[in-house]
Amino acid sequence: MAFYLVGADLSGTKLALALTDTDCQVVADAVHEIDPRAGAPAIARTLAGQVLALTADLPREAVLGVGIACAGLVEQGTGLVRFAPALGWHDVPLLAMLASELPWPLWIDNDTNLAALAEHQQGAGQGCQHMLAVFVGSGIGAGLILGGELYEGARGFAGEFGHTTVAWGDGHSGCLEANASASAISRRAIDALARGGPSRLADLLGTSTPAELHYVSVKAIAQAASEGDALARGIVDETAEILGAALANAANFLNPERIVLGGGVVRELPELLDGTRKVISRLVLPAVGERLEVVQAIHGREGPAIGGAVMVKLAGRLRQPAR
Amino acid sequence: MAFYLVGADLSGTKLALALTDTDCQVVADAVHEIDPRAGAPAIARTLAGQVLALTADLPREAVLGVGIACAGLVEQGTGLVRFAPALGWHDVPLLAMLASELPWPLWIDNDTNLAALAEHQQGAGQGCQHMLAVFVGSGIGAGLILGGELYEGARGFAGEFGHTTVAWGDGHSGCLEANASASAISRRAIDALARGGPSRLADLLGTSTPAELHYVSVKAIAQAASEGDALARGIVDETAEILGAALANAANFLNPERIVLGGGVVRELPELLDGTRKVISRLVLPAVGERLEVVQAIHGREGPAIGGAVMVKLAGRLRQPAR
Repeated sequence: MAFYLVGADLSGTKLALALTDTDCQVVADAVHEIDPRAGAPAIARTLAGQVLALTADLPREAVLGVGIACAGLVEQGTGLVRFAPALGWHDVPLLAMLASELPWPLWIDNDTNLAALAEHQQGAGQGCQHMLAVFVGSGIGAGLILGGELYEGARGFAGEFGHTTVAWGDGHSGCLEANASASAISRRAIDALARGGPSRLADLLGTSTPAELHYVSVKAIAQAASEGDALARGIVDETAEILGAALANAANFLNPERIVLGGGVVRELPELLDGTRKVISRLVLPAVGERLEVVQAIHGREGPAIGGAVMVKLAGRLRQPAR
Repeated sequence: MAFYLVGADLSGTKLALALTDTDCQVVADAVHEIDPRAGAPAIARTLAGQVLALTADLPREAVLGVGIACAGLVEQGTGLVRFAPALGWHDVPLLAMLASELPWPLWIDNDTNLAALAEHQQGAGQGCQHMLAVFVGSGIGAGLILGGELYEGARGFAGEFGHTTVAWGDGHSGCLEANASASAISRRAIDALARGGPSRLADLLGTSTPAELHYVSVKAIAQAASEGDALARGIVDETAEILGAALANAANFLNPERIVLGGGVVRELPELLDGTRKVISRLVLPAVGERLEVVQAIHGREGPAIGGAVMVKLAGRLRQPAR
């Protein structure tokens, strides 16, 4: 009989599912919209129902487990989602809610922890003992592989890199996420347009004033930057500076051999990777930097769900028969 | 026969030695001045000679090993001191130089890594699985205990916390060490006096102008702060703010259960510990902070040398007979 693993990735907007073989290769997947207003019990039922639907054609014993990725602070040991702002959740016992609906062993972890695990096991981090994976999108999150294993910290909250305070003086203030995420990049573009900088991005305004412009997409900034637009290039450079400085600090602190950068902003803004790499090289201690690689993630949006399947595989259920 | 361990701590000003029993309790110690201008070969000979002197009354086989702490970037695997600014060293093969002079197994590591190990094994970090130890003195260094063991990173350079960039905007700039070490605190006091702030510290000026004042000791600032001097208290608060923000970032990143603060500045400025604790509480994610303890180190200047003895003990030579 062929065996399968299930990964599920729950965020504030979507539920992504992956059915994989025992090598964690995806054999089927699905994405469903999520409305956080439905509340935790309904969302848990939806999650369970979609896992059952994805596996409906399989014998129950062919599925070895379900690994759930959740966008929030997930407590190891209890399976509690302590805080998930995108879902509006505080202290939701998601693992316990699912256990009564699904007949398989269940694991749960933070989404970027599992995206890091996916990169480590079958992505841009293969073979690393010490690796930092950072994902820049609508938020910024990270996962750490230390000593060849996912590092959870005391209670599972390790990797909250987006909450790094990156400035205390004037100028930028607040946390990394508020300075380098997609919405922060967009806001910076709008602010630059409001200061009257000439730019191709001004075409986006139409009849609006900069103050009326709600969002400039990362794609539009990437397009303008690739065409040599100085304002757009300045935004890319500034983002690389902020992100690179935070990553150089992390590298000096943990001495990893590789930094994997992923997430929508990194995918849509290819120049950010190279810019960030240069800033890290400039700021990191030479001995720490001389064998440090900075590479792009292999996986896209499917990363956390695949990481969920990897978590099931690593949890030992599959390794036990081989002993 | 009783067995013994040796720890040696080499910095740019001194060589501290500890002879311990197999529980790493100090039975004899010594401190010698070091002049970096003597050069690496002479300093290595001094180190070896002082270890031999400290153990002169013992049978050779009663000494189980020597653990050396060095103030610099120490590469694991090669035993190279890659960079030790206080000694003026680049790529000094200290372990190899000592191996020809000393007849015992040798280990080497960074001084704050070993101070963290000493706290973990027999200090303020006992029983912790995940702990960050930070030492604030003339420099700022750290050591990480992750998963119950000293975390070295890819090549032994983990824990370079003093090189954390703490500001990109106006105001403060540069790294944590340049903003919160003893000399940074002193400079801040001199700057505040130069701005004409009324303070008991002005008594230190005598007939000098603030520009002529080279150094205000941390003790003098501590004394003035304890007497309610507003300028001195402001300096303590600002130091706590900078240090606490950097530590809150580290806590969000690694989710430790304990932060141990040590070093001369922490010993001499007791109010810094409580101030830093408050800043961490304010800035850390609530779930990360709710079970995070911030405590003072037990060991003082002797910490790295004791950590050297602990390293020998943990390296397995002592554990093997018990198996």
